[in-house]
Amino acid sequence: MGEMRFLKLATLQQVYSEYLRLVNPLDRVEQISVLESLGFVSAEDIPARQDLPGFNKSLVDGYAVRAKDTTGASTSFPAVLHFAFEVKVGEEPKRPLGQNEAAWIATGAMLPIGADAVVMAEHTQRFGEYVEVMKPVAVGENVFKKDDDVKLGQLIVTKGVRIGPGHLQLMFQLGIQRLKVFRRVSVGVISTGDEIVEPFEQNKSIAQVRDSNSYTLECWLKSLGFRIERVGLCRDDEEMLFKMLKDSMKNHDAIVIVGGSSIGTRDFTESAMNRSGKPGVIFHGILMQPGKPTVLGLLDGKPVVGLPGNPVSFTVSARFVLLPILRKLEGEIDFLPKPVGMVKLARNVSSRQGREHFVRVRLFVRDAQVWAEPLESETAQVSNLAMADGVIRLPANIEGLYAGDFAEFYPLWSGW
Amino acid sequence: MGEMRFLKLATLQQVYSEYLRLVNPLDRVEQISVLESLGFVSAEDIPARQDLPGFNKSLVDGYAVRAKDTTGASTSFPAVLHFAFEVKVGEEPKRPLGQNEAAWIATGAMLPIGADAVVMAEHTQRFGEYVEVMKPVAVGENVFKKDDDVKLGQLIVTKGVRIGPGHLQLMFQLGIQRLKVFRRVSVGVISTGDEIVEPFEQNKSIAQVRDSNSYTLECWLKSLGFRIERVGLCRDDEEMLFKMLKDSMKNHDAIVIVGGSSIGTRDFTESAMNRSGKPGVIFHGILMQPGKPTVLGLLDGKPVVGLPGNPVSFTVSARFVLLPILRKLEGEIDFLPKPVGMVKLARNVSSRQGREHFVRVRLFVRDAQVWAEPLESETAQVSNLAMADGVIRLPANIEGLYAGDFAEFYPLWSGW
Repeated sequence: MGEMRFLKLATLQQVYSEYLRLVNPLDRVEQISVLESLGFVSAEDIPARQDLPGFNKSLVDGYAVRAKDTTGASTSFPAVLHFAFEVKVGEEPKRPLGQNEAAWIATGAMLPIGADAVVMAEHTQRFGEYVEVMKPVAVGENVFKKDDDVKLGQLIVTKGVRIGPGHLQLMFQLGIQRLKVFRRVSVGVISTGDEIVEPFEQNKSIAQVRDSNSYTLECWLKSLGFRIERVGLCRDDEEMLFKMLKDSMKNHDAIVIVGGSSIGTRDFTESAMNRSGKPGVIFHGILMQPGKPTVLGLLDGKPVVGLPGNPVSFTVSARFVLLPILRKLEGEIDFLPKPVGMVKLARNVSSRQGREHFVRVRLFVRDAQVWAEPLESETAQVSNLAMADGVIRLPANIEGLYAGDFAEFYPLWSGW
Repeated sequence: MGEMRFLKLATLQQVYSEYLRLVNPLDRVEQISVLESLGFVSAEDIPARQDLPGFNKSLVDGYAVRAKDTTGASTSFPAVLHFAFEVKVGEEPKRPLGQNEAAWIATGAMLPIGADAVVMAEHTQRFGEYVEVMKPVAVGENVFKKDDDVKLGQLIVTKGVRIGPGHLQLMFQLGIQRLKVFRRVSVGVISTGDEIVEPFEQNKSIAQVRDSNSYTLECWLKSLGFRIERVGLCRDDEEMLFKMLKDSMKNHDAIVIVGGSSIGTRDFTESAMNRSGKPGVIFHGILMQPGKPTVLGLLDGKPVVGLPGNPVSFTVSARFVLLPILRKLEGEIDFLPKPVGMVKLARNVSSRQGREHFVRVRLFVRDAQVWAEPLESETAQVSNLAMADGVIRLPANIEGLYAGDFAEFYPLWSGW
């Protein structure tokens, strides 16, 4: 028997459960202004320090009243109340509202103490010191109660959630100025492959290939707020890769090694990784397509991800394998990719059983339904990456889907 | 007869057709590095200046051959070829391949002239100067042809498309360094409302409301790459609004006026807009919920958008009305919101006929389907904005949807 090579193949589910379990959040906390917090992961539970809206607020222009003073009111027999005062927006009412009194109140203004409902202006008539109410109101009618939106002490942001515009709205409304967040992860990217040259290299031989993956990754991850540094180009040379890897491990929280197209590259990517830290390579190859030649290692606690060199495989693997790792490192609780809906297939797609397939699609709307047109599925085609709105997922246990079937849709780049 | 007030109500479809037709792209072009172009709209059609991959590329490790030299080959009767030379990745082959010759070739390497297929290594055996091929190959087998991905002259980016990571991949691969893009739009934001105070104001009366809308808009639009300036807070005072509007029209391509909660505010927003430029207000009110109190004007060619003060209405209107306007201004061709899939409703939702409804939902996956849990639909609730993954759309002509029905899903903030 010759040397047996142990292929540590994993399903995507195993990556999510077994590998990601080993990835520990960095837990580096900093305090920043809410104004800069969009896209950061919160490092604290933030309770509301007040109710929201914080006062009983009128939802209409009209008269604040005690509901019981309007009982039985009608056009023929209006309830006649005393005009008390006026409440403008932003003002605290002058005094409590007495029995059989009505106070003119603007939309958004604060109800006086004593008032428990607002009669819409169109159901009232004013005669000097008197207000005729032509329609009864129930307690609470046209009123947004002081804690209807948020109750004092209620958590408005929880630890491990990525701050979105909805959280900003709440924090601004509650006057929260600063919060604790986890620092953004820093990613180092090494390109490998003897055939790879810089994208803007002028003296390129016809057989050489311009590096598109690492630069695209840099632009994409930066747009998501990550810190990313392109460490450089590495020849197909284990010693050189080992040195570059060791070096970049000093400066970054996670390392990405972008593979060249050659099969040899993957082999010494694995060797270099195993030499650089413990436990080393965890999985070599993922049962997904595209994206199979992905290598996952953990080197002295640092995730190192070998991504395939083919730009399509690279993109799918970056989206479904790398991004969840970075999200978990940043302390996010919900770090796994989620479908944003289902789409109807415009034509049949086939799939090899035993592998999870991601098929690039372009979406269109027809007959009030969202359809997906699968794009040419040749893995090596970069050109249709630019046309794709995202991918549909075909689980490993099916052989394909028919036109008209539903499939889960994932945007390729936008969204978390 | 008293003064008749003409309510220029519009459906969202009218906004998209009639109002957006009046919005002219700014057509301000600048040339930037591809490295900075993510999220910009291309101002030019970019043709490929070479084929991609640009050379016939082997998809496997094996032997490059002339397919016809392998005809009839089998394990018992292998085709015996002369070992010619080796081709590494990134190298141009030394010489053309002759008849009955085989050249060792790595995955990703360039086929020699004369070769038209590659036999996988596992179907071959090398004996010194000879290579035995145990399986025939067809012309083109295991070869990615020089123009299989992109053909010389093919457009890889078209004018009016927003540059995504897929376009970056292609531009880097083709060595494109710079491109013409439309300049990002500059947006001025004015907050209005007597009740509104700055979010971090310490001496706030209980009846005052902190400004969350304009700051959230600033953070959100910045994250999408727009230039945005918060002009400031305006009292409920037509003259003051008129002056602030006139001023900010000098510095920005589009103006957003965030309304306070009071109905009066909307009236002088309209007056101030009509005084500031021609033709003035085009639509006052959109048949959508939330988001109805949206005002759309065109002032001397500049779009001015009055957004509702309620944070939920504000968000929906910013997403479905403001964003398409900004996208069209930036020269994007596909500027309308698109659903990213369909989701199954977890419970019934009702809707008032005649208005397009957008219901905030939270997504979850169950039984391999994507479900949407509608969140409390009280418009005024800000707290569930933070929990929502997006909204479903209920067209104006229906009265509601039942649990289990499908609805179109739109992310609220992410994605275009």
